[in-house]
Amino acid sequence: MITSRSGEQFKYLQKLKKQSAFRLQEGCFFAEGERLVSEAPAGALLRVYVSETYEKTHADRPERFPQAEVMSDSLFAELCDTRTPQGVLAVVRRQTASPEEVIRRGQTPLLIITDRLQDPGNLGTVLRSAEAAGATGILMSADTVDLYNPKVVRATMGTIYRLPAAVTETAEEAVRLCRAAGVRTYAADLSASIPYDTADCRIPCAFVIGNEGAGISQAVREESDARVHIPMAGPTESLNAAVAASVLLFEAARQRRPV
Amino acid sequence: MITSRSGEQFKYLQKLKKQSAFRLQEGCFFAEGERLVSEAPAGALLRVYVSETYEKTHADRPERFPQAEVMSDSLFAELCDTRTPQGVLAVVRRQTASPEEVIRRGQTPLLIITDRLQDPGNLGTVLRSAEAAGATGILMSADTVDLYNPKVVRATMGTIYRLPAAVTETAEEAVRLCRAAGVRTYAADLSASIPYDTADCRIPCAFVIGNEGAGISQAVREESDARVHIPMAGPTESLNAAVAASVLLFEAARQRRPV
Repeated sequence: MITSRSGEQFKYLQKLKKQSAFRLQEGCFFAEGERLVSEAPAGALLRVYVSETYEKTHADRPERFPQAEVMSDSLFAELCDTRTPQGVLAVVRRQTASPEEVIRRGQTPLLIITDRLQDPGNLGTVLRSAEAAGATGILMSADTVDLYNPKVVRATMGTIYRLPAAVTETAEEAVRLCRAAGVRTYAADLSASIPYDTADCRIPCAFVIGNEGAGISQAVREESDARVHIPMAGPTESLNAAVAASVLLFEAARQRRPV
Repeated sequence: MITSRSGEQFKYLQKLKKQSAFRLQEGCFFAEGERLVSEAPAGALLRVYVSETYEKTHADRPERFPQAEVMSDSLFAELCDTRTPQGVLAVVRRQTASPEEVIRRGQTPLLIITDRLQDPGNLGTVLRSAEAAGATGILMSADTVDLYNPKVVRATMGTIYRLPAAVTETAEEAVRLCRAAGVRTYAADLSASIPYDTADCRIPCAFVIGNEGAGISQAVREESDARVHIPMAGPTESLNAAVAASVLLFEAARQRRPV
């Protein structure tokens, strides 16, 4: 059992926990909780830990998490992001697809591009909805909240292991890469002119979702093939960003479903 | 300026803050932040407070919040739910519509019924999406998270003042009231048989959204006119509850829009 704060292994984990640059350098992230850890692809699981209490109270631990090492509760809690940890934690290898590879996945690409999306819960929910709607990947501007932020990881409900994802310097770069690959780009824009359900989504296409407060950037507005909006009733000014992305994605799924 | 912790007014506000049963008895709730307070209907604003710092730093306070009383920063912070209060807080009168009144609003009712929805952010987002999609009201089971929970109020982005809302003992009671009023009820159910976009939403109708983990109850499954599901790709088990509600609501809005 790992009980020493000064041991090499715990010091390494502490550094991973505290420094996002070190996690990036090591190409890994933390996954917390039984479900997230058990859904991780075996080949991506670098290390698995369970708390002392979890070990004592879960007789099926050796079958569920055979490779797990046991850690004292107090050290374990220091590595967790949740206030009431479930007792299972893993260090998982990151995806390493390039933007071009993400765009080329699937027969008929359906992509989401995020332009400075800031809320971790929103980004996680976007991934969850994207996979459910049959999207083939996500491209995130470098100033979108970090995909490997623990709150994002949790909100994806496991989608983080499966949906092809890559970062581009800016969202307009992602738009240009899509257009070069023959993927039509629709930017969600409140001042846009065409209702989202009149956009043809049966062709290879990508939706750009902007920042929660400011929407999409002027560069994205100019670079994208078309601007789409979700018609709204009443004095509501906008939708939650993850909701808007989901409504667009499921309209694409609806159009793509065989009648 | 209110500076005394032992004054009658502050003691009353403290009691309102701490006891949800007292807020219910007094028929009011707290709204925090410039935007939420300024969007409240004038007739529903019972009391408005600004912090001492807000008063000093906002010369336009007398025009924006003419009825506001100034409170010392430390007392003000005690009444707030947010960690970094904006400095404006109001006590607002609750809506008092009956379920039957909510159902009868609008030419062609489009309602949301929540069955034990638990997450405050989800309920707030459901209200925000419902108004944007042109819904005419929301009915909540008594064991849905309290609409006047400060986190719900914030997540509604002001919709709480406008969308007709009422509580019923159970979600199945709401379903029965809808059916009695000629409103067709569609319950979102993963094991359901009809895809959501094949349900006719141009007629008066209501969607039932279940609990985040458990979905709708067996009684709702039996009482509702039809069960609908959102077809999903991949191993995703479910959508975020607010996302699912939004996808259903915007499908209804799409069907109702003149071509």
